[in-house]
Amino acid sequence: MDLKNKTIQTQLDHRSIREFTNEPVTDEIVDTLMEVARRTATSSGMQAYSIIKISDPILKTKIAEVCKQEYVARAPLLLIFIADQFRNHSIAVEKNSESTTTVGMDHFFQAFTDACIAAQNVVTAAESLELGTLYLGSILNDPQETRDLLKLPKWTFPVVGLAIGHPNQEPQLKPRMGNQLKVFENEYVCFENYLSEIKSYDAEMQEYYDLRDTNQRLDSFSEQIAKKAKHGLIKRQEMLNLVRDQGFDLKLR
Amino acid sequence: MDLKNKTIQTQLDHRSIREFTNEPVTDEIVDTLMEVARRTATSSGMQAYSIIKISDPILKTKIAEVCKQEYVARAPLLLIFIADQFRNHSIAVEKNSESTTTVGMDHFFQAFTDACIAAQNVVTAAESLELGTLYLGSILNDPQETRDLLKLPKWTFPVVGLAIGHPNQEPQLKPRMGNQLKVFENEYVCFENYLSEIKSYDAEMQEYYDLRDTNQRLDSFSEQIAKKAKHGLIKRQEMLNLVRDQGFDLKLR
Repeated sequence: MDLKNKTIQTQLDHRSIREFTNEPVTDEIVDTLMEVARRTATSSGMQAYSIIKISDPILKTKIAEVCKQEYVARAPLLLIFIADQFRNHSIAVEKNSESTTTVGMDHFFQAFTDACIAAQNVVTAAESLELGTLYLGSILNDPQETRDLLKLPKWTFPVVGLAIGHPNQEPQLKPRMGNQLKVFENEYVCFENYLSEIKSYDAEMQEYYDLRDTNQRLDSFSEQIAKKAKHGLIKRQEMLNLVRDQGFDLKLR
Repeated sequence: MDLKNKTIQTQLDHRSIREFTNEPVTDEIVDTLMEVARRTATSSGMQAYSIIKISDPILKTKIAEVCKQEYVARAPLLLIFIADQFRNHSIAVEKNSESTTTVGMDHFFQAFTDACIAAQNVVTAAESLELGTLYLGSILNDPQETRDLLKLPKWTFPVVGLAIGHPNQEPQLKPRMGNQLKVFENEYVCFENYLSEIKSYDAEMQEYYDLRDTNQRLDSFSEQIAKKAKHGLIKRQEMLNLVRDQGFDLKLR
């Protein structure tokens, strides 16, 4: 068994690509990526996700503004993955002619998971074709605006965006925390002192050059975390309100 | 550009595998899969997930009971993916010596997404090694029990399980809904009548033999949906209570 096959090599070589060449992503490629999404595993076979391809340049710019990432407006291919229980709920209502059916958080999380794993499958397929990818969790900086821009109906929710194109940069592989801190056996392991555990990782991160800020060095990992803990976006923190507004029954006691 | 490369072929060929041979998944394979997880994209570089490998047979059986899937107890490799903000929150507190830091739903969803996409990357890697995989969203049938079994601390949440092993069955490729119903351009498209749109898919599903129920035919897709709408598990519908109990600030207005 070849543990370093082409697929795994590509996966181990993953890095975010933020700048793309002008070469478009052809319809044939898009169709292939969408077919990969279609064949991705899905909770109980329910296929509770949808994908919206953004081709309108004005809409792309507006999404880039939500993301606070100007380069998103220049992404050759921009996909938004949607947790979607609207379609299945519509089918249930048509079939049962009952209006009492509620859509709960179990449905929400199934749909959210479906959308995420379809997105990752598309990433792997794109990278196998030597395309570069960038996840945009930042579409949730203002989830309501994203919902409005995409005209999302009830029982849907935006999950993650994906920018795809032919890479126009070669970033370094970004340092990652060691698995001893995140892979456990049979039960979760809490550490006494994380700062001492991640000391060498912290140092490694400071050696890494991030292409985003004109080759400036990064903060250590612990410094990044400490800064992030102080600056959260309110609309993002409050996104559960939109989950409820979209019709999902939170069932809180 | 070869749109049918080995990686994409494997992705298009995905099916759930529920029965495995006795051949164990070697430590070398597990290490490779965990390295693939480690290199997966992660929201803002925060790596807010953990993975728990279940080797204890008693624990495996208990998890199979939560899943209501007895064959899970026989999975050669069983992994549980955890949304994990405990580690980063601990680092923030150690660094800032502030006890006021809250962990919100933005953190929850970042972590949940990280866990999902790492899981899908592991699935693809495993399948590239000709292993079979099975997602277990069913660990959330009783999320509190799963939390207790894995001794999960605050600011963590179980996301999805994954059974992996050498396949001992060859299921048919399962029919999937056409992309015209789930891939859109620039905005979400609502259909007037879904039942007529999925008519041929409904018929196709009835032709499919599901290995789970001794080769019984399946209900049509719309029939499956209508049945599911009536039978939800209360503990699963109410999982948001556990999200809150785990320390995440829901920030509901």
